[in-house]
Amino acid sequence: MLKEKMKSWKHIFKLDPAKSINDADLNKIKQSQTDALIIGGTDNIEATDVIDLLLRLTDTSLPVILEVSTMKAIVPGFDFYFIPLVLNSQDKKWMMDIHHHAIKEYKEYLDYADYFLEGYCIFNEDAKVFKKTNCKKPTTEDAVAYAYMAENFFKLPSFYIEYSGKYGDVDIVKAVKAELKETLLFYGGGIKTLHEAKEMSAYADVIIVGNVIYENIDQAIETTKINEK
Amino acid sequence: MLKEKMKSWKHIFKLDPAKSINDADLNKIKQSQTDALIIGGTDNIEATDVIDLLLRLTDTSLPVILEVSTMKAIVPGFDFYFIPLVLNSQDKKWMMDIHHHAIKEYKEYLDYADYFLEGYCIFNEDAKVFKKTNCKKPTTEDAVAYAYMAENFFKLPSFYIEYSGKYGDVDIVKAVKAELKETLLFYGGGIKTLHEAKEMSAYADVIIVGNVIYENIDQAIETTKINEK
Repeated sequence: MLKEKMKSWKHIFKLDPAKSINDADLNKIKQSQTDALIIGGTDNIEATDVIDLLLRLTDTSLPVILEVSTMKAIVPGFDFYFIPLVLNSQDKKWMMDIHHHAIKEYKEYLDYADYFLEGYCIFNEDAKVFKKTNCKKPTTEDAVAYAYMAENFFKLPSFYIEYSGKYGDVDIVKAVKAELKETLLFYGGGIKTLHEAKEMSAYADVIIVGNVIYENIDQAIETTKINEK
Repeated sequence: MLKEKMKSWKHIFKLDPAKSINDADLNKIKQSQTDALIIGGTDNIEATDVIDLLLRLTDTSLPVILEVSTMKAIVPGFDFYFIPLVLNSQDKKWMMDIHHHAIKEYKEYLDYADYFLEGYCIFNEDAKVFKKTNCKKPTTEDAVAYAYMAENFFKLPSFYIEYSGKYGDVDIVKAVKAELKETLLFYGGGIKTLHEAKEMSAYADVIIVGNVIYENIDQAIETTKINEK
């Protein structure tokens, strides 16, 4: 079961299909100590780009996950599918209605797919994903209450603190972690150094590293060394 | 555990704290073959009325449940608390935001309360609760997809087909039941005769009988005889 495997994960690289990466850099990712690869992004996500990237990852033994952000870029062949529910969106659409619509079309497929729900809480007001999903900036108290709902109301397997491009507030990550027992805590946003990776890893079960891949590949690879002293 | 007990339930009477019931009729309810009593309603729900009714039920061995419809009428002392999430509301508010707000205020209390989530799907466009929660009338396909989400996305313990005052479409109840494995199916709305009670009980795990209590108490009591040949 995916959920059991993930309990041992600490680090995921997130690759954006709308951004280009050369083979040498992609090989460094594949050979790194990361635990899994997510393909996902917010803007200009096209199925052809997702397929291209997936095909370039056929030679890795790492789990390859599609984070479904738009219906038009759902591609078969991934090991797992991550499905975000935006808990702090002000619109029901991003919490569950687009998913409801998708289930009506693809239910037969979902019965066989290995999918995993992410209870997103988005903090960075300047991020495209924050604006696109019409979020309201959560306080620490809001975030803790969303985490409570994710775990106790909806039994979500993961709660995702998303700072999307900006390094977040460690105290919020710490407060949310203290609330969760079963639900895994994901943290993503602005991690560019091993120090930051270690800092967030102290509380988050899994950290997700994305943008720095495209800015400084060697520094990105360094963030996988969170278990080293 | 509440969820285990409920697996054997077939029939619940729902008492509206805004409506009056005399002692003789209430005694008939207490002595009936129903499995539990819910106190709940849509309009004019006041804490004083909820308390009055609860105090008149202290001498029953039936489980007494408060269905929480408004924050101002949450009263301690019930065996269980049912919390509705309106899946087909067009507003996130009725799906999860009022609950999020409540958790911020009452989280310490929730940790000790025995509560149970109901994934409501409301069908009767003329019902007050439909208008109040700004619902969109679901098709059978919509209802089945909501049931899928209730069970697989949110792991809700119950899915509640609510016709609120109007007898519903048995084919919808049958289609939803075919989708559910773990999540219990509740049906409520318009049941006034034993025949109707048996018809809905053929598919719903639990039927909820309400209005007829205030119209014809003896006929209401008849609806509990669903297990008799």
